[in-house]
Amino acid sequence: MPDRVEPLPNRMVERLVAYRRHLRQCLGEGRTQIYSHELARLERVTPAQVRRDLMTIGYTGSPATGYGVEGLIEHLAGLLDTRSIGGFALVGAGHLGRAILDYLARQHPEYQVAAFDINPEKTGRITHGYRCYMIDELERVLAECPMRVGVIAVPAEAAQDTAIRLIAAGVSGLLNFAPVRLHVPDSVFVEDADIALLLEKVAFFARAGRSEEKV
Amino acid sequence: MPDRVEPLPNRMVERLVAYRRHLRQCLGEGRTQIYSHELARLERVTPAQVRRDLMTIGYTGSPATGYGVEGLIEHLAGLLDTRSIGGFALVGAGHLGRAILDYLARQHPEYQVAAFDINPEKTGRITHGYRCYMIDELERVLAECPMRVGVIAVPAEAAQDTAIRLIAAGVSGLLNFAPVRLHVPDSVFVEDADIALLLEKVAFFARAGRSEEKV
Repeated sequence: MPDRVEPLPNRMVERLVAYRRHLRQCLGEGRTQIYSHELARLERVTPAQVRRDLMTIGYTGSPATGYGVEGLIEHLAGLLDTRSIGGFALVGAGHLGRAILDYLARQHPEYQVAAFDINPEKTGRITHGYRCYMIDELERVLAECPMRVGVIAVPAEAAQDTAIRLIAAGVSGLLNFAPVRLHVPDSVFVEDADIALLLEKVAFFARAGRSEEKV
Repeated sequence: MPDRVEPLPNRMVERLVAYRRHLRQCLGEGRTQIYSHELARLERVTPAQVRRDLMTIGYTGSPATGYGVEGLIEHLAGLLDTRSIGGFALVGAGHLGRAILDYLARQHPEYQVAAFDINPEKTGRITHGYRCYMIDELERVLAECPMRVGVIAVPAEAAQDTAIRLIAAGVSGLLNFAPVRLHVPDSVFVEDADIALLLEKVAFFARAGRSEEKV
């Protein structure tokens, strides 16, 4: 893989992660080759988009046989390798936080994960194998075990302060579930998982989906 | 508002919903006017994008005074009015499902919401004021009280069957939290809230965020 200093575009990383998931599934089913139109159909993009994405990361297939499943998985593994993040610090161990711990346990069993909450009833527990600490311990825990990804699952009014604290403790990427926009330094990557907004958006298209309606 | 038969683009609806949220906040703070660059900064888009979006929906501001907050909220209310969806049918009342019920209770108290689960320990309960039914009752409940939005918060292996059942019961928009791509008729809108994918994406950019690293 050539050295690259330019980060990949946001949406492209999303697609590469999704391609990898399908490729792993194909591998599990014993397949050795896959065509761009198959990956495209699975991801609801065009085959040309798939080919552009894979060309951008320096992987080429053959028009006759497609892409080698195992080779492409390995290539993506090098590119998407995130072991250097150390782990995930999750703030807010309510229902949403516990659902996220479940995703982390299933998808990323190889990472350190620490949960934090303000409520003493939730702290001290082990959920999905991960310890939940009092929020006061955030700085100490992250100093001992650096974690570059912060997940914010606290109420809207606490989200900005939580972001500042996580960043001060060394976090450089945030997944924000609170329905507010965070103000962070440019060096920090923020992805909003804005469930309230998605609910409104789906409601809009559910209404507009029927052709007899006018929008 | 002129009659429109073309649905608005996906990302634009997302931005309009977000603008409206900020406008409501501004209104609450007693503001009467807002400039495109203020909405742009809040949403991390360009001021030109904001002006294009609002021009597309037929709302114009003045370069001197910006947009009228109250007028724009009213205009958006007409456009984004989703009362005709009836309500939300949520399948899967685990931690994630209960977190979504919390969002619905806060953001959409005006809608009917019914939750469904396969586990008798979770059914029969009231969570955030919403009843949780046995999944067997899905068809009956939706026949009595039509709901056009389905929210899928079940494990991956149950997601496709859940989607088919919801669609057969009259749902035309799905918010899918399961980490799989659903196969649905073209008339059904699907939004994937793919938390596992977002976790991987943020991990990638958290790693790449530091300039000394090569990606």
